Amino acid sequence: MRRVDLRSDTLTKPSEAMRKAMLQAPVGDDVYLEDPTILALEEKAADLLGMESALFVSSGTMGNLIAAYLHAPRGTEVLMHERAHTYRTELSGISAVAGAKPLLASGDRGILKREALEPLMNKRAIYYMERTSAIFIENTHNFCGGSVWNALELVEIADFAREHKLALHMDGARLFNASVASGMSAKEIVKDCHSVTFCLSKGLGAPVGSILAGDRDFVYEARRTRKMLGGGMRQAGMLAAAGIYALDHNIDRLAEDHQHAQFLAKAAKENPIFTQVIEPETNILFLHTDRPAVQIVEKLAQRGIAVLSLDAHTIRFVTHLDVSTVDINYVSEVLRELK
Amino acid sequence: MRRVDLRSDTLTKPSEAMRKAMLQAPVGDDVYLEDPTILALEEKAADLLGMESALFVSSGTMGNLIAAYLHAPRGTEVLMHERAHTYRTELSGISAVAGAKPLLASGDRGILKREALEPLMNKRAIYYMERTSAIFIENTHNFCGGSVWNALELVEIADFAREHKLALHMDGARLFNASVASGMSAKEIVKDCHSVTFCLSKGLGAPVGSILAGDRDFVYEARRTRKMLGGGMRQAGMLAAAGIYALDHNIDRLAEDHQHAQFLAKAAKENPIFTQVIEPETNILFLHTDRPAVQIVEKLAQRGIAVLSLDAHTIRFVTHLDVSTVDINYVSEVLRELK
Amino acid sequence: MRRVDLRSDTLTKPSEAMRKAMLQAPVGDDVYLEDPTILALEEKAADLLGMESALFVSSGTMGNLIAAYLHAPRGTEVLMHERAHTYRTELSGISAVAGAKPLLASGDRGILKREALEPLMNKRAIYYMERTSAIFIENTHNFCGGSVWNALELVEIADFAREHKLALHMDGARLFNASVASGMSAKEIVKDCHSVTFCLSKGLGAPVGSILAGDRDFVYEARRTRKMLGGGMRQAGMLAAAGIYALDHNIDRLAEDHQHAQFLAKAAKENPIFTQVIEPETNILFLHTDRPAVQIVEKLAQRGIAVLSLDAHTIRFVTHLDVSTVDINYVSEVLRELK
Amino acid sequence: MRRVDLRSDTLTKPSEAMRKAMLQAPVGDDVYLEDPTILALEEKAADLLGMESALFVSSGTMGNLIAAYLHAPRGTEVLMHERAHTYRTELSGISAVAGAKPLLASGDRGILKREALEPLMNKRAIYYMERTSAIFIENTHNFCGGSVWNALELVEIADFAREHKLALHMDGARLFNASVASGMSAKEIVKDCHSVTFCLSKGLGAPVGSILAGDRDFVYEARRTRKMLGGGMRQAGMLAAAGIYALDHNIDRLAEDHQHAQFLAKAAKENPIFTQVIEPETNILFLHTDRPAVQIVEKLAQRGIAVLSLDAHTIRFVTHLDVSTVDINYVSEVLRELK
Repeated sequence: MRRVDLRSDTLTKPSEAMRKAMLQAPVGDDVYLEDPTILALEEKAADLLGMESALFVSSGTMGNLIAAYLHAPRGTEVLMHERAHTYRTELSGISAVAGAKPLLASGDRGILKREALEPLMNKRAIYYMERTSAIFIENTHNFCGGSVWNALELVEIADFAREHKLALHMDGARLFNASVASGMSAKEIVKDCHSVTFCLSKGLGAPVGSILAGDRDFVYEARRTRKMLGGGMRQAGMLAAAGIYALDHNIDRLAEDHQHAQFLAKAAKENPIFTQVIEPETNILFLHTDRPAVQIVEKLAQRGIAVLSLDAHTIRFVTHLDVSTVDINYVSEVLRELK
Repeated sequence: MRRVDLRSDTLTKPSEAMRKAMLQAPVGDDVYLEDPTILALEEKAADLLGMESALFVSSGTMGNLIAAYLHAPRGTEVLMHERAHTYRTELSGISAVAGAKPLLASGDRGILKREALEPLMNKRAIYYMERTSAIFIENTHNFCGGSVWNALELVEIADFAREHKLALHMDGARLFNASVASGMSAKEIVKDCHSVTFCLSKGLGAPVGSILAGDRDFVYEARRTRKMLGGGMRQAGMLAAAGIYALDHNIDRLAEDHQHAQFLAKAAKENPIFTQVIEPETNILFLHTDRPAVQIVEKLAQRGIAVLSLDAHTIRFVTHLDVSTVDINYVSEVLRELK
Repeated sequence: MRRVDLRSDTLTKPSEAMRKAMLQAPVGDDVYLEDPTILALEEKAADLLGMESALFVSSGTMGNLIAAYLHAPRGTEVLMHERAHTYRTELSGISAVAGAKPLLASGDRGILKREALEPLMNKRAIYYMERTSAIFIENTHNFCGGSVWNALELVEIADFAREHKLALHMDGARLFNASVASGMSAKEIVKDCHSVTFCLSKGLGAPVGSILAGDRDFVYEARRTRKMLGGGMRQAGMLAAAGIYALDHNIDRLAEDHQHAQFLAKAAKENPIFTQVIEPETNILFLHTDRPAVQIVEKLAQRGIAVLSLDAHTIRFVTHLDVSTVDINYVSEVLRELK
Repeated sequence: MRRVDLRSDTLTKPSEAMRKAMLQAPVGDDVYLEDPTILALEEKAADLLGMESALFVSSGTMGNLIAAYLHAPRGTEVLMHERAHTYRTELSGISAVAGAKPLLASGDRGILKREALEPLMNKRAIYYMERTSAIFIENTHNFCGGSVWNALELVEIADFAREHKLALHMDGARLFNASVASGMSAKEIVKDCHSVTFCLSKGLGAPVGSILAGDRDFVYEARRTRKMLGGGMRQAGMLAAAGIYALDHNIDRLAEDHQHAQFLAKAAKENPIFTQVIEPETNILFLHTDRPAVQIVEKLAQRGIAVLSLDAHTIRFVTHLDVSTVDINYVSEVLRELK
């Protein structure tokens, strides 16, 4: 039986070519800033983002945690969407480590609009009232179905951040999915952000790691914080080589993953089991059903298809590098005929 | 001009009789557990609540913070209403000091119902998912207009807490308002809670302080935590004397404050400026208006009446010990004729 | 039998005159900055210290904790003496709440000298090395026997702090003992400190509270932090009235406590049980003995004299307002004849 | 000119054979526990240590930080040597993240003896006194010159921990150096420890990573904490393959590094510049000099030899896998003739 794993794009495994690049990478002690491949990746990433500086971190969670630690003095609030990854599934590190409190706002598709945010900024001048230090936005927005911020929405949030003197951080775990879907370059997308994190280990297909970027001072402090968290790695150059390979080869092909998600959506619409099909903007598809989601997940598993339930009635499909069009055709077939 | 201060029931000043009780109180070093008046207040409060033990703390905020610190291991979530005082206006101490993250739920009148909570408990068994340690409920619920939990609602949340092995803490800043309004004794209200805090300095009229109660081990640790926060006070017996006086004399009279709030609501309903009058369950009245709330606040101020705006279009009135029926009649008059 | 309590100067009870001042104090809601007596105390304290601003806090521990929270960004070190009160007996709040790590130095009499500190500042410029943010000095130094910093020592530490860009905080729990003993005014003593805390509740005889002072911005943030810790008190004016009374009446008389400590030292020297008598500089006397300290403590208790053992062979005597010369003569007698 | 880098054993680079093992490693998503090579390494490490379970972490700092986070409830003390790596150069994560305070003790060669520790445990039963939760010992002890705990010393500290109900964690960054030097197996060394961390990336020659081991519950929580810190890595199997290779091939050869350190010590003793040569127990050599250490470091650099100064008059040499006997002969020569 065919096996297709659509649980997450974190599952991608390094290709032969990527492994070869890893094997040949020169390395050194990165704590001492002596690993040439790490340094090359960080420079390449900074260029790609139009940021002064970048840092290799072991995960997107670490990138976001460091950003919270640096932007949000303890006891301050970080404004974010009520379905933000940082609020929902980063093990509360934002509070446990950074000492900050999520301040939640709602918004369609994970987009934060001024009208939802202004009321939350009420009375901030009084000494005994909460203080907000930063905004975290997520692009694409995972738990809102891989939705993408458009240029106007980005301008609006940047203006809001500026007016309220808030640091603006983008959790861009899937930043290049956003870029490919919107037609905006990564540089354009993040141009008003003080910091951004993106993952090499999701759609881009590297085995390990993320990038955290910002200005030089921010990255200096981020490097320090990474060390404190135990994220300083010694001869990590081989991981960086995979990252460089990913940036060189795997960005444009994300369009294919997006198309795959649309194929799946189209198939699901033909099956009345799925009471709502959230139109996929990128590589994530949400299907709602009146049945218990776990039941559908189980049925798909019997057909060799692995997916996750997000809540009692929502199933998430994530397309990625290791899923072929043939795989997608197979899954589409199953989705159409599932009873 | 008559001056009526309805900004908060924290504003009450000690009466002559209360001051006299304070003057005569025997004192000692409470850090060494040698202040007889503090010990007497703590024992009296524990009895009143049917709890094993109680601790005098300098504020409700400190009581809630200690409860969070003890019930919620860092990196865990504390489930609470999205308008909880602990989430909104305790300066994020829950995250900064206790290292815990608020997990927010919605619910009419600040009441948390099982159907809103169950979905949040989803998938807790997986090692990399959030962990929830405690529920904080608020009774009466300040930012929901002083609403009161009824007996059935309390049973439901207690059952939920038990099933999910969550500590149940009640922020009972205005616990005796809830008691008077519901006809339940304080003991009945808190019988399924692991801990409770109530304020001596609000409707009860003492100048300073709150009680945090729970079982013996909890209070032992709470006393320790209070010392760490710098809340250990030396000869605080005079403050405790005011608290004892308040518990002896000022509980039953809260009914009068509740009646006053209803008088004000009645008057407001006669004025179309107020587009919505939230029926007061206790001593807090919320009036909604289409006009800017600050404008109404300003107009009332010109008539000697001090109130607070809660958001752009909501005004809060809090009745208390230092506001007489004559005062209330005056304010009612103004509310009726305000333009 | 005569009873003399020399365990600590925290034990002093408010005199009749002080209680009377408390009874008459006008009060208001201090969270709203409306308590006139609190404001008067804070202004008086600031003047006395030559600082821009001051804040009433419920204990010296809270004052020190707030200072650490504000001066020491989490993950930084606070340089202090290895016998500092903040390191030894403030329940690790500096780490638990402020997230800072004590960096310990040694020094006779609790005095920190440049030669002991310079080696600790080694290599601070490397990104992955520790960062030090503040120095806490203690004057008088409790666990070094109530020792006093002289003017030259204060200049040296201030210069060191300046050169290394460290905030300088003085834990002046017994600042006025230092002032009376050294002949320097409180103002002179703290002139190079960024912040200072002193206790109203020790030798000065007030029942509760301490002052934390600094510049206007610091105190603004301190007031905010106090609220977060739950240290915001409502009608605390009566406590402040005691503080004002204490500052008006009880500073000069500290000289008497110091003399009492010397009387005790003199008596102890006549008894070979005490192998070392640390010459008291202020109101604290340390006696060393080869016997188990607890045994001596017990024998004194049998004679109605309460003291504490500090370690296996050290006993601490603290003289204070509630101990008369007749008491001291009695204790001296016992010390001479103890077997 | 020959170049010999003796700054640290973290500098070792993966050999061809190790890289080859990495290239061939099967991988999966380790967050989902699906990376077979990671699982194999963790099992192998647990076996080697005689512990129930083990976890791959990105650094020794992360291993120690997680141990502190789990063993030391915030606000407690972790007893350790005053020259402990965790106190000195882990960026205060123990306080910033774990909220714990180092409680320092002294002891020759980094060994903690009961007589130094007992006085620190004084009075722990009083509610307002510090509480100690854990002991961290370091074996070999880096900043005491790579010293090794012997069997009797280990028994003594284990007994002490047991009596005082303290968790015992070993920072075994160089555990296998200790094993080779003492002739005790790793299993024997750690048998009374609740947890241990050792580095794959130091003398063992792997590029990245450490192992944190303990009982099953501990490692479950450690895995969770690692995720919170952002240390969860996806397809990290290649790094684990290097670790497996290191454990299979590079333990016994540590004896050679130790011998090399002794050669260097012998040479240094012939040069009066070095006023004290600390006899190396493992692969770390400390030389004291009356001259500024940085001057000696500079002179060695001119001869192609890289070392670090530890303080004003101490230089540290660390031998390792990438330093040959020929290299050592060269450095010995230079040490003998240095002026």
